[in-house]
Amino acid sequence: MPSGTLLYAQSGGVTAVINATAAGVIETARARKVKVLAARNGILGALREDLIDTSRESAAAIRALAHTPGGAFGSCRVKLKSLDQDRVRYERLLDVFRAHDVRWFLYNGGNDSADTALKVSQLAAEFGYPLTCVGVPKTVDNDLAVTDCCPGFGSAAKYTAVSVRECALDVAAMADTSTKVFVYEAMGRHAGWLAAAAGLAGQGVDEAPHLILFPERPYDEADFFAKVKATVERVGYCVVVASEGIQTADGRFVADAGGGKDSFGHTQLGGVASFLAGRVKDSLGYKVHWALPDYLQRSARHLASKTDLEQAQAVGRKAVEYALKGMNSVMPVIVRSSDSPYRWKIEPAPLSKVANHEKKMPAGFIRKDGYGITPAARRYLEPLIRGEAPPPYGRDGIPKYVTLKNVAVRKKLTPLET
Amino acid sequence: MPSGTLLYAQSGGVTAVINATAAGVIETARARKVKVLAARNGILGALREDLIDTSRESAAAIRALAHTPGGAFGSCRVKLKSLDQDRVRYERLLDVFRAHDVRWFLYNGGNDSADTALKVSQLAAEFGYPLTCVGVPKTVDNDLAVTDCCPGFGSAAKYTAVSVRECALDVAAMADTSTKVFVYEAMGRHAGWLAAAAGLAGQGVDEAPHLILFPERPYDEADFFAKVKATVERVGYCVVVASEGIQTADGRFVADAGGGKDSFGHTQLGGVASFLAGRVKDSLGYKVHWALPDYLQRSARHLASKTDLEQAQAVGRKAVEYALKGMNSVMPVIVRSSDSPYRWKIEPAPLSKVANHEKKMPAGFIRKDGYGITPAARRYLEPLIRGEAPPPYGRDGIPKYVTLKNVAVRKKLTPLET
Repeated sequence: MPSGTLLYAQSGGVTAVINATAAGVIETARARKVKVLAARNGILGALREDLIDTSRESAAAIRALAHTPGGAFGSCRVKLKSLDQDRVRYERLLDVFRAHDVRWFLYNGGNDSADTALKVSQLAAEFGYPLTCVGVPKTVDNDLAVTDCCPGFGSAAKYTAVSVRECALDVAAMADTSTKVFVYEAMGRHAGWLAAAAGLAGQGVDEAPHLILFPERPYDEADFFAKVKATVERVGYCVVVASEGIQTADGRFVADAGGGKDSFGHTQLGGVASFLAGRVKDSLGYKVHWALPDYLQRSARHLASKTDLEQAQAVGRKAVEYALKGMNSVMPVIVRSSDSPYRWKIEPAPLSKVANHEKKMPAGFIRKDGYGITPAARRYLEPLIRGEAPPPYGRDGIPKYVTLKNVAVRKKLTPLET
Repeated sequence: MPSGTLLYAQSGGVTAVINATAAGVIETARARKVKVLAARNGILGALREDLIDTSRESAAAIRALAHTPGGAFGSCRVKLKSLDQDRVRYERLLDVFRAHDVRWFLYNGGNDSADTALKVSQLAAEFGYPLTCVGVPKTVDNDLAVTDCCPGFGSAAKYTAVSVRECALDVAAMADTSTKVFVYEAMGRHAGWLAAAAGLAGQGVDEAPHLILFPERPYDEADFFAKVKATVERVGYCVVVASEGIQTADGRFVADAGGGKDSFGHTQLGGVASFLAGRVKDSLGYKVHWALPDYLQRSARHLASKTDLEQAQAVGRKAVEYALKGMNSVMPVIVRSSDSPYRWKIEPAPLSKVANHEKKMPAGFIRKDGYGITPAARRYLEPLIRGEAPPPYGRDGIPKYVTLKNVAVRKKLTPLET
């Protein structure tokens, strides 16, 4: 039984399976008799010494975590700056770690979190405090470097592909007298991974989605309109999937064009789908519908990918193993050894290679005309949405998601001046 | 083996289970050796003599129909007027029916379709043409008269409750540093049935959804803001479900306030959720997110309610039985004999009692403060979302939805002048 406490924290936008990672962490640590605390609301909980005693949760509750979406301990959108600029907060973290005998820090998030974990480990070394920091990957955006894919993405990708397939069947039935163009807005400010996943909904240019708009390609309205019109004339309707982050050639976000203030000075919240739908209606005269699934796409645990779930659990387990072995400043990443049959394994990667990088889609994943995915993209994406892993449902027809007790640990320090 | 042809048509907005009704119709008719044609794109296919020979579809394809969303034969948004005003079109229908020996007409839709089926049967009687017309219920809006509930609603209701539960877990995790208010827009222009179903996602005033906005209650912005603020201060965040059809006390649709033209004369498509989110942001200063699932909520066959699926199949089967027995101008409706245990049966109801009526939610289903559902609503709604009936999935991670061949029957008449 190793001596000391393991601290786990969730960071950034949550996913359908980040709690499966948490369950993997807690179950693996329990098996090794290691005490696990969780920071409430990510790094903020660590700064505030607001720590949760996970030993107060039953084994059944931790098992149920693996099928519960959201972030069970709370997450946060806080990015610490450089060690120089944010020294007070980094030192506070070390104070809290010392006070609770934290020897292993697992930070479950994206590239900002990897950066934070790396800096904390550097400061600990500077102070001679024995601490092992491990980053644990997570993001529906699939934009982390080094890892082949990111836990959370596969489930959001499956949600996207299935939803687009389903609404396309609806539009197809209505198109003769009603809706001819449907616009689906996918998350992805900088990289079009989720929009690309929609491409798995159909095969060939006549199956929906007919047009995908990627942030990696400049949005050209005239060209887009021509493509929409040609599709409606050829197929009878047109399903468009747009990344929220598409930009015109001069670098303006299309979403912002739909926002701003109205004549009363009221905020008009932007949105790519509603903007494109309005423009198509005005310019081409088609009846349009659009959908903005927003958080639904990243919390749809009911439609999780089994591959994604297994990877999310695996990175959690491996993170504990690496930590207990003293492998500092690493992240368990997913390495793909084969597309077909799909084979993957977990390996450690240096946090320095993950921190602050952003992985865009390879150019070879976007069709030459810019509006669809290539066979290479399909080979990459398809295994990630494979397999179903539905949660158990109650007699009331709703999944049995767990709410943890989240009992706070008694504080030992004076509050941080903030 | 009864002599003659049965014609089936789908009408209005499609649902996750209208094809399950179609499968029930076709399988029951096949067992009775009755030939089934389907009109392509609803009543339009009948007017255009654009008929589909369903005998060209395999038994496996028809079985797969039961788990395929959308409208497999195409639907339409066309309402015939009175017999006087639209006489030419009604007579054309009879001409087409005669030409193809149609003796039974099954029209699968809402109250407009019930009205059309009723008028066709009246005209047939006037001409002495032997025709039995049966309406088959369908609508996610749950607003048909007489029937206890409408096939299609239960699955959309389950989608709504599950989605709201899932995104609420997401918001709860983010609320400390990010999104504090989330607005989910539910279908329902005149009746708040789907918004009410969201209420099944939680229990008590502190569980999401915290506030439901019904079209049955006037929208009062100041009161709503006060409730949002109080919820955020008490719970930490606030999940709002808004019916698309909410109106202010003077009868203006709130959705329209978010629409109109921008300063360039471009159409700004309205939307309740984006409008409310913008107002909450401006007035209360909270970070907001919102979702507009649109067609996703009515096509999400992957999350169908088993109760709903069984009822959808049952009304299809019963419609054929009624038709073959010569029960004219009726609709198979769902009769609830008990809430707990939930018991239901199918009985015939006169189309005249269904046609052109609209069922609103009983006042006793909306909480006194206007922002939630009552125990009576829960007792009514809960059985309708009960049970799961997932479609089979392919190895590619996508449900195996069927596309029918939809082979056209050779035309016998000259085209309709339109």
